[in-house]
Amino acid sequence: MKVGTQRWKAVCAYDGTGFNGWQSQPGGNTIQDFIEARLAVIFETPVRIHGSGRTDAGVHARGQVFHFDGAWKHPTEHLHRALKAGLPQGIQIARIAKAKPDFHARYSATGKRYFYSLFEGDAPPWETRYCWSLGRRRLDIDAMNAAAQPLLGEHDFSAFGANRGDGSEDNPVKDMRRLEVRKRGPKIMIITEASGYLYKMVRSLTGALVSVGLGKIAAEDLSAMLAAKQRTHRIETAPAQGLWLDKVFY
Amino acid sequence: MKVGTQRWKAVCAYDGTGFNGWQSQPGGNTIQDFIEARLAVIFETPVRIHGSGRTDAGVHARGQVFHFDGAWKHPTEHLHRALKAGLPQGIQIARIAKAKPDFHARYSATGKRYFYSLFEGDAPPWETRYCWSLGRRRLDIDAMNAAAQPLLGEHDFSAFGANRGDGSEDNPVKDMRRLEVRKRGPKIMIITEASGYLYKMVRSLTGALVSVGLGKIAAEDLSAMLAAKQRTHRIETAPAQGLWLDKVFY
Repeated sequence: MKVGTQRWKAVCAYDGTGFNGWQSQPGGNTIQDFIEARLAVIFETPVRIHGSGRTDAGVHARGQVFHFDGAWKHPTEHLHRALKAGLPQGIQIARIAKAKPDFHARYSATGKRYFYSLFEGDAPPWETRYCWSLGRRRLDIDAMNAAAQPLLGEHDFSAFGANRGDGSEDNPVKDMRRLEVRKRGPKIMIITEASGYLYKMVRSLTGALVSVGLGKIAAEDLSAMLAAKQRTHRIETAPAQGLWLDKVFY
Repeated sequence: MKVGTQRWKAVCAYDGTGFNGWQSQPGGNTIQDFIEARLAVIFETPVRIHGSGRTDAGVHARGQVFHFDGAWKHPTEHLHRALKAGLPQGIQIARIAKAKPDFHARYSATGKRYFYSLFEGDAPPWETRYCWSLGRRRLDIDAMNAAAQPLLGEHDFSAFGANRGDGSEDNPVKDMRRLEVRKRGPKIMIITEASGYLYKMVRSLTGALVSVGLGKIAAEDLSAMLAAKQRTHRIETAPAQGLWLDKVFY
């Protein structure tokens, strides 16, 4: 880090609808692109931000975390205000604070919480972008929670991963600390906390748990799939728009 | 009504974002235009629908009601499904049922409930389209509720109306049955039930109550404005996107 520069940690929320996901790409229109473009104006020099991880197009975040370095002589509040002022309506900077020089949004993370939002029936128009509408299908919540139990703890989650297609590899062993299904009226939420996630893992787990809830696969099948450590066509990937990155733990 | 035709009552919900309001207009892109276009396909003849009233561009509805006439020999459920299938994602037909021949969505209505949604602070990205964000401003909810009291009952609400600009006139005397302000966390809701409303009346009442909540005008000023029966520049019109038509009473 250059003399005078400071590491910053920021927490942001976004409505993933209409963006091409978190990660910067040549076509632009990503959350990262918009935040970096704004920071470049504020710091009058290119600024690279580092997110806790990517989110796909259409996925939302309540508490995505990123860090960056920059020299700022004014109060932090002014930086916050300057950054907030120049972003699209769908992106919100909730907090920004000084961080230790060795803080890293991705590598310092000890875990993450996601939730996946489902709706029994047709979701109202103002919720369709934020959940997966199940129409006439009804889920057996107890069966789903029972099937989730064997997935808790440390496992090789290869069966619920997907190939990113860019040659990147990831350690498939993750510690699943929480995986539960809650229902309130027509709204169903799958909540997961783990040390980390493979690409499309939450959406694959959701697809698998929904299949259990619909009686298409048995709870034991889910355990067998996990043990097989191989992706099977029997696991559907749930649509992106129901997925929310809720919180990153440090 | 032609022989064989039947009057239908339908309840619909919509996300007003991106539509040019309820009422059909030459430029199209209104809720009424989309529903009529779909019904014309289903009935193979032009169908005119009659709403309980207009909503402006950006205003949402949980329970807008409309009626229309059409000859349908199949189960009502099939009509419902056919209508639902061909509408934009932002429009939802909640219910459709046979109505008596003299039912009229507008003239048979005995009252309507609206709510106006406010947010103290910056609303998260997925709520900005559905409320009015107050930023750093804080409202005195008790003062607002106290100021609302004298508006209950039958009054000439000309002070809170606006000229539609199309020469239409409306009886300014309305029976205000409910006008209350509720707060839950950062979310504030103004709920109103009345026999009817003048053009922009709920948004004007909201603007006036917010001014009271901010201490810009006193509760007595509000009563004086009502008594004056004349629109004053001191009343701001709240933005459209916080307004919801909740329910039409018959």
